[in-house]
Amino acid sequence: MNPKRCAACRYLRRRCPKDCVFSPYFPPNNPEKFACVHRIYGAGNVSKMLQQLPVQTRAEVVESLCFEATCRIEDPVYGCVGIISLLQTQIQKTENLLARTQAEIAVAQTKHSQNQHSEFM
Amino acid sequence: MNPKRCAACRYLRRRCPKDCVFSPYFPPNNPEKFACVHRIYGAGNVSKMLQQLPVQTRAEVVESLCFEATCRIEDPVYGCVGIISLLQTQIQKTENLLARTQAEIAVAQTKHSQNQHSEFM
Repeated sequence: MNPKRCAACRYLRRRCPKDCVFSPYFPPNNPEKFACVHRIYGAGNVSKMLQQLPVQTRAEVVESLCFEATCRIEDPVYGCVGIISLLQTQIQKTENLLARTQAEIAVAQTKHSQNQHSEFM
Repeated sequence: MNPKRCAACRYLRRRCPKDCVFSPYFPPNNPEKFACVHRIYGAGNVSKMLQQLPVQTRAEVVESLCFEATCRIEDPVYGCVGIISLLQTQIQKTENLLARTQAEIAVAQTKHSQNQHSEFM
């Protein structure tokens, strides 16, 4: 056992090369992180996606892949599309409440100006 | 060429079996749909995910996988997590606007009741 192997190489039971594409993003103390993306995308696809993108973007790529993979494991039917639906519902509710509140203001303003008008009659 | 092969079996250049797990969701007239999920997840992972879930949920599984795969192809760094961030920003903006509008109502009501009070003094 080489304690310096990254979580990915440990999971794949292989030597961790010096230029390992996984190593900067999958530290050995968090094996679950690699297990998640491996289960949903497969190691080969993750490696391919990382290699196709500039090094400075890869940490964010890994974070978003891990997020999506975790969502898919928690909700195998909808994955993080379920979260998108929930957020869209929340936006709809907040927008409806906003529209109702703005309508209330408009009604109150109309009443107020009618009252002022009748005071001067 | 068998014109009845589904888009997945056509893509994978294999015979389309009668009980093909892909066939109900990947019609031959939409090859792009399978190409997307294959590129991100791989045919084996998609097949495994479908087989682990009840038949009545599989159409929704395919739709959410296609959505996520398309997002990842369009935005290789953030995928559909980028959409989640955008929606969260939109919720924050709408909630701020709502809070401001409700505060305006509170101010207007206070002024109104103060005016009424001073009229009776």
